[in-house]
Amino acid sequence: MSTYIKVPQDIEKRSFEIIGEELGEKREKFDEKTLPIAKRVIHTTADFEYADLIEFQNGAVDSAMEALQNGCKIYCDTNMIVNGLSKLVLGKFNSSAYCLVSDEEVIKEAKERGVTRSIVGMEKAGKDRDTKIFLIGNAPTALYQLKEMIERGEIEKPALVVGVPVGFVGAAESKEAFKELGLPYITINGRKGGSTVAVSILHGILYQMYKREGF
Amino acid sequence: MSTYIKVPQDIEKRSFEIIGEELGEKREKFDEKTLPIAKRVIHTTADFEYADLIEFQNGAVDSAMEALQNGCKIYCDTNMIVNGLSKLVLGKFNSSAYCLVSDEEVIKEAKERGVTRSIVGMEKAGKDRDTKIFLIGNAPTALYQLKEMIERGEIEKPALVVGVPVGFVGAAESKEAFKELGLPYITINGRKGGSTVAVSILHGILYQMYKREGF
Repeated sequence: MSTYIKVPQDIEKRSFEIIGEELGEKREKFDEKTLPIAKRVIHTTADFEYADLIEFQNGAVDSAMEALQNGCKIYCDTNMIVNGLSKLVLGKFNSSAYCLVSDEEVIKEAKERGVTRSIVGMEKAGKDRDTKIFLIGNAPTALYQLKEMIERGEIEKPALVVGVPVGFVGAAESKEAFKELGLPYITINGRKGGSTVAVSILHGILYQMYKREGF
Repeated sequence: MSTYIKVPQDIEKRSFEIIGEELGEKREKFDEKTLPIAKRVIHTTADFEYADLIEFQNGAVDSAMEALQNGCKIYCDTNMIVNGLSKLVLGKFNSSAYCLVSDEEVIKEAKERGVTRSIVGMEKAGKDRDTKIFLIGNAPTALYQLKEMIERGEIEKPALVVGVPVGFVGAAESKEAFKELGLPYITINGRKGGSTVAVSILHGILYQMYKREGF
């Protein structure tokens, strides 16, 4: 039998120590609430470039914590994000995550209109008043759509938007454009991001709350 | 209304063109079957370093294609991977993906033994003869466990192992150690990898088959 570490908590603890050491002076870019989030993104990607690319705007972390403390719904643009989020931890705060891109009605409507399922799913989610947090990890179109719906006053201002679509066509531009709204917003500048990054950002917030509550 | 591209196929086509252009001479590192896989990993991560880190061993792509052509089960070490895989495309080849880390029996047994759920899930999967492909995107312990089970002759040699756990403790070492077996194997050398990377590698194989069949 090999002598590798087998206890999950030990692996995670040691990983975060290594990340802290290797971040070095870059740690100073963050405060006590944003540093654990940046570290968790690096933990998920093994990519230190995220320390330079991640950006927190307009009290994003505090705003999200307040919404989660009161319990809310979280709309995700992929089922992978929903699946990656800890149901156990969300449940402690009476919160839950959902996605509509595989919803039958959404698929039908997207086909008829010749647009992405992300756009149609986002429209339906925006109309649900309990949805206070949006996690966009895949589709630039979803982030543009969300921006337009907020600008047109069709939906209330979210407590947090995590806008981290990954990709080569429109991703960087969509993330930049969303900043104009001046909302509580966490993004990854440039092309990088994705479903696992979106999950790690929300977990970075939730696990701080979880620890504080001493669950 | 903004003028961004809204048609999903156009976005993907243009993305792959950009990736091809920016890869430049690095394209020559790959052949006609491995290039689409490397490109798809970069499409998923927006990280060109994956062109240097990805490694294909012992006829991995052909071996996987043969197993999928005959229909097989694919064991994944996270539910996120299962969720990210296209059920539509897998179904065309009478194949399916599953994960056992949230299985109640597995959770109970892992707690009792003080080891990861990944290890216990892998043991159970290894005993299922229809499981020909393993996707390990998260846990180095799962990859070590799989290696030991194969060495002890407890399970048949898989048609493909995608070993891409991400992380700072044991991930790189586990991926390197697995090479000793000389099996059809696709890996990401070093610390990088993850669930979305595992999905993109299998999709890179499946979509080639899908196109060839003209579905």
